[in-house]
Amino acid sequence: MDVIEIIRAKRDGGKLTPEQIDWVIGAYTRGDVAEEQMAALAMAIFLRGMDRAEVSRWTEAMLSSGERLDFSDLARPTTDKHSTGGVGDKITLPLTPTVAACGAAVPQLSGRGLGHTGGTLDKLESIPGWRASLSTEEMRRVITGTGGVICAAGSGLAPADRKLYALRDVTGTVESIPLIAASIMSKKLAEGTAALVLDVKVGSGAFMKDADAARELARTMVDIGNDHGVRTVALLTDMATPLGRQVGNALEVAEAVEVLSGGGPADVVELTVALAREMLIATGLTPGENGVKDPAQALRDGGALQAWKDLIRAQGGDPDAPLPEAAERRVVLAPADGVLTRLDAYQVGLAAWRLGAGRARKEDAVSFGAGVTLHAKPGEAVKTGEPLFTLHADEPERFDRAAQALEGAFDIEDVLEQKVQPLVIDRVS
Amino acid sequence: MDVIEIIRAKRDGGKLTPEQIDWVIGAYTRGDVAEEQMAALAMAIFLRGMDRAEVSRWTEAMLSSGERLDFSDLARPTTDKHSTGGVGDKITLPLTPTVAACGAAVPQLSGRGLGHTGGTLDKLESIPGWRASLSTEEMRRVITGTGGVICAAGSGLAPADRKLYALRDVTGTVESIPLIAASIMSKKLAEGTAALVLDVKVGSGAFMKDADAARELARTMVDIGNDHGVRTVALLTDMATPLGRQVGNALEVAEAVEVLSGGGPADVVELTVALAREMLIATGLTPGENGVKDPAQALRDGGALQAWKDLIRAQGGDPDAPLPEAAERRVVLAPADGVLTRLDAYQVGLAAWRLGAGRARKEDAVSFGAGVTLHAKPGEAVKTGEPLFTLHADEPERFDRAAQALEGAFDIEDVLEQKVQPLVIDRVS
Repeated sequence: MDVIEIIRAKRDGGKLTPEQIDWVIGAYTRGDVAEEQMAALAMAIFLRGMDRAEVSRWTEAMLSSGERLDFSDLARPTTDKHSTGGVGDKITLPLTPTVAACGAAVPQLSGRGLGHTGGTLDKLESIPGWRASLSTEEMRRVITGTGGVICAAGSGLAPADRKLYALRDVTGTVESIPLIAASIMSKKLAEGTAALVLDVKVGSGAFMKDADAARELARTMVDIGNDHGVRTVALLTDMATPLGRQVGNALEVAEAVEVLSGGGPADVVELTVALAREMLIATGLTPGENGVKDPAQALRDGGALQAWKDLIRAQGGDPDAPLPEAAERRVVLAPADGVLTRLDAYQVGLAAWRLGAGRARKEDAVSFGAGVTLHAKPGEAVKTGEPLFTLHADEPERFDRAAQALEGAFDIEDVLEQKVQPLVIDRVS
Repeated sequence: MDVIEIIRAKRDGGKLTPEQIDWVIGAYTRGDVAEEQMAALAMAIFLRGMDRAEVSRWTEAMLSSGERLDFSDLARPTTDKHSTGGVGDKITLPLTPTVAACGAAVPQLSGRGLGHTGGTLDKLESIPGWRASLSTEEMRRVITGTGGVICAAGSGLAPADRKLYALRDVTGTVESIPLIAASIMSKKLAEGTAALVLDVKVGSGAFMKDADAARELARTMVDIGNDHGVRTVALLTDMATPLGRQVGNALEVAEAVEVLSGGGPADVVELTVALAREMLIATGLTPGENGVKDPAQALRDGGALQAWKDLIRAQGGDPDAPLPEAAERRVVLAPADGVLTRLDAYQVGLAAWRLGAGRARKEDAVSFGAGVTLHAKPGEAVKTGEPLFTLHADEPERFDRAAQALEGAFDIEDVLEQKVQPLVIDRVS
């Protein structure tokens, strides 16, 4: 096999054969294909695309570069969710124990935040004692005991993806639907789940700004999952505005606990229930029938909250300990009377990032207490001089730049009624 | 400046600004832009192209990465030729002394052969004592004394091009018209010629197999030259069949000397005269008027031959010494009676390469005596059992694979008259 021949084939609009894909991913992982050669191939794929057979094989080759977990011997069926990332997207936190409380098992490998979107592991690490890094043994013990586990992916899973993602990050080849789909799905298939629900975000706070691109990404990932024997469906969900009323690490944990206690913001509850039902259905369980609890019921009856506490304790955390709070607060007041008609997810995410909730580089630490509290959501009335946002930070010098990010982030209008965008935009299966 | 932003701009079909181009070439040459980043950019340029302003600036930036020679203080006007490379293309050898004999000066920086095409320096090095590597001082002394100089480009000229070419070679990004044009023109502009004639080859033995692509390359290079104040014209010339009757190093020197002595194959004479006239006209001299000798006359009257001997001697060579000959010969006989209607340049070049005339890797040595003698050219009659080719090699075990390359390389047909393709296909100015 000759890597230049493979690059030229894709460059000229051809299809890569299964043998070419297997060889190039293997040789790249071993270091026999140079970074500059893979960069040229990634750009050719970016501009020429890959068809369903190519993307499936590319995913398979990345999956084969490392170990693959196997939970098929668990008593419960396994099911997982992956979100493409958004602002205030704490859904994994209430979702995992809710699905566990309804009878399925959730092996969830999560990541950390980078840029304006938060990471599930950063949020959970604000809980005193909680550990993200588990051995495969520990992971198995936690999921067997509690029906869920949320932990960091070990370095043995899809090493080709880790190497390729780092390369794409510095070569302007991140935003390629086949490469994004293969990257996500190689990691999700490696974690050994039997069913998978994808939450593909659309809007200013999402990676995909428009619905057509998001739908194409969803379709590509659903096809890859089903091609590999994992029952996969995707929901396209709105990320034009943040999810819930809290954006930050400990702030989002507190909001998740509200939802698990039967309260919390309506949008977080709605999406948790919708995704939980899809996750159960994908395993063959029917919520509300044959003794399978419905997720909305699990949130109301304390079952989900109990599963949350079990899960946090099993990974060393104290679910009853007070959460970290930021040392400083600043309140931003509403400048007008009216209805909040727009609240931009990206700009709120940027403000939270500037407050210290996110990181600029992988090696940075996050502030657990930092973030933004939203006192109004789109469609709600606001009054001049009443609080619109509360900013939380450890250092007061962070407030000005965060407040700047929020300056053009919202509209207050004099309207009687505001039509709100549905949260679940589409379903792809 | 951010290299990822530059890559994304080109990837998405945008134009690069002059500032972006200057910065990226400079940073790449310094090592601040990584090989994988330039590889991604090169592939984006390959697939998205560059317009005239971008290619001119790209060339300028590569030129500015190194030193630029200056021959503007010579008494004679300077003019040069560049060929995109072909089989049996020894034209630089008779051309340089011919133009010198007509009153212009030729500062010719040449290269070595790679693959099936030969290199001017390899050919001249078959002359005992001749040296390709000259200091800038020596170069100036030779051109002042003889009206011409043919030597290797020093490492100080366009170092960005050297680095980028090596990268393109391993990343499947060689065959990009803007990148080829910028590569050639940055070196030619660095050599300080005031006028330039490009010989853009078309056909199986050329880099460009079809006339449209060759015309686009010619147009791009002519525009770059004129944008930089160098009067530039291009001829598109046929490379479907080899030039002349000798393909190899010393074999081609011998044929060049025949042409310089007033004989030699008609096609070599025709192209030498056509290019020499263009080179003189580009400097403002009119061949045959105001005491400017016509190139055809210089070939007939011994003026070009004398200039050749001066030029070879000035670089340490002995123009009267016997040339190296290969230790072994094998004759291939014509298998039929008729007219030779096709003789494929690429396959003849491949045969010469397999005989030892070329090199597979830069560090390989070439055999000076190796090559192919063509006993018939397209349009000429052949007879069964008479010699069609003579193969020359130092090791007899090379003959079989060379003969294989020639097996499908020609057609002999029973026709009365064969229409021969004109040698000069088009002119771009």
